[in-house]
Amino acid sequence: MELLNSHQTFGGNTQYFSHRSLVCEAEMKFGVFLPKSAGTAAKCPGLIWLSGLTCNEQNFLTKAGAQRLADELGMILFAPDTSPKDLGIPGEKDRYDLGSAASFYIDAIQEPWAKNYKMETYVASEFYSLCYESFPVSSLGIFGHSMGGHGALTLALKYPDKFVSVSAFAPICAPASCDWGQRAFAAYLGPEQKEWAKHDASQLISRYFDRPILIDQGKSDEFLHKGQLRPEVFEQVCRESQVPLTLNLREGYDHSYYFIASFIDDHLRFHHAAARNHEF
Amino acid sequence: MELLNSHQTFGGNTQYFSHRSLVCEAEMKFGVFLPKSAGTAAKCPGLIWLSGLTCNEQNFLTKAGAQRLADELGMILFAPDTSPKDLGIPGEKDRYDLGSAASFYIDAIQEPWAKNYKMETYVASEFYSLCYESFPVSSLGIFGHSMGGHGALTLALKYPDKFVSVSAFAPICAPASCDWGQRAFAAYLGPEQKEWAKHDASQLISRYFDRPILIDQGKSDEFLHKGQLRPEVFEQVCRESQVPLTLNLREGYDHSYYFIASFIDDHLRFHHAAARNHEF
Repeated sequence: MELLNSHQTFGGNTQYFSHRSLVCEAEMKFGVFLPKSAGTAAKCPGLIWLSGLTCNEQNFLTKAGAQRLADELGMILFAPDTSPKDLGIPGEKDRYDLGSAASFYIDAIQEPWAKNYKMETYVASEFYSLCYESFPVSSLGIFGHSMGGHGALTLALKYPDKFVSVSAFAPICAPASCDWGQRAFAAYLGPEQKEWAKHDASQLISRYFDRPILIDQGKSDEFLHKGQLRPEVFEQVCRESQVPLTLNLREGYDHSYYFIASFIDDHLRFHHAAARNHEF
Repeated sequence: MELLNSHQTFGGNTQYFSHRSLVCEAEMKFGVFLPKSAGTAAKCPGLIWLSGLTCNEQNFLTKAGAQRLADELGMILFAPDTSPKDLGIPGEKDRYDLGSAASFYIDAIQEPWAKNYKMETYVASEFYSLCYESFPVSSLGIFGHSMGGHGALTLALKYPDKFVSVSAFAPICAPASCDWGQRAFAAYLGPEQKEWAKHDASQLISRYFDRPILIDQGKSDEFLHKGQLRPEVFEQVCRESQVPLTLNLREGYDHSYYFIASFIDDHLRFHHAAARNHEF
């Protein structure tokens, strides 16, 4: 694990690292925000952010404005990259919604992706362990945006014992039934719909999941109107399964980081409260 | 003036425009943040941000995290571009510190820059008028970062009746005696040192300027250590001229937007207080 650079931010530090992922067989980058209390206090609640299509390990930590309150609350923020990068896989960079920066946080089983695109295992096991081993973390929550919102919801549902809290901004709620998800799942998983269902938050939800879920969704989000996000499907299955979902539909907001920045404080407080409850 | 896009942000709106600059004979872009009160209240205090080398009209509004408090205080933020762009001037894009994104906010008098690189007149007259004519602005302050900090200080000193307040992050305080400034001034102004002095904040300062000036400077800023910024020169002349300068040297902070984001609220409050005093 190599420290690439470090920027003092609100009393804490925003840092970028590179490390060798055994799971993805690739060099991976990630970002971290360490609040000033991380050097002095007992362990801090941690929070993994999963970014959306076209993003990297920097978008969240440069644009969301999360560090101000994270420093105040004493929370550690982690931002892994959105896929392995620059592996020379054929077609890796041909489309913004497939391959590079478009892993969908699943383990691919189809060629040419199967060897390196193991982002589910990377985030939920390898990177998850790294957070605990290399940083003073007391618990981990997970959240994300768009494709990363899908990643956060599905990983929280698949690994309820690992993540103490989950939230999302404009998540892809039903990937098996939207263009983005169908293209990615066909490429990474093959044609079997049964396989797709294992990675679709709206199909993974069940009565066994009793944690509160927080979602913010802009009502002027172009991808909402194009049917890529489908929060209404997720809302319906949460209702049927009695999963406590808070879905805030925000008048006037779009899909951008301006929207995320506007509500990031609410999400940090939500996860902070869950981490505190978890400790007691 | 054409609206390129609009993003609801903290109840207000971050917007990007394009317009034809008669002064620069070029299409120019700029960003604006309008707080929610701009649509309803009386006129709002406005603040022009000048960005640094390599930047455009978006860096400040995506990375500084200024909109949260600007919305709360009811301030309008303006972010012009750092130079005319894509004009096909020979050498325009050869160096990061000359030509495109490196105007130094002065009026060039040397070829091939003299026709379009009129950024002093652009900001202090044409764009300044546009702010008042197209937005509900009650007063204008000016601030900026690095090259834009130099721009803010020099324009405030040259046009004390136009800008009610001035502050800067890591400004180039003495461009006539640092590498960046010398290269740019030689190209834009020619070899005459007398000409350079007119655009150097440390030489423009005088007893006639009685406004308080706020500067934040990171002590781990690599460009401070390379002698590009020279706040100590500016501090000395302010002391000699009895100009009330607050120079905060910030332990551990570098030259990045992480540093700016950490102290942006202090600067907004400084300008807001000055604007209120100006009204009474």
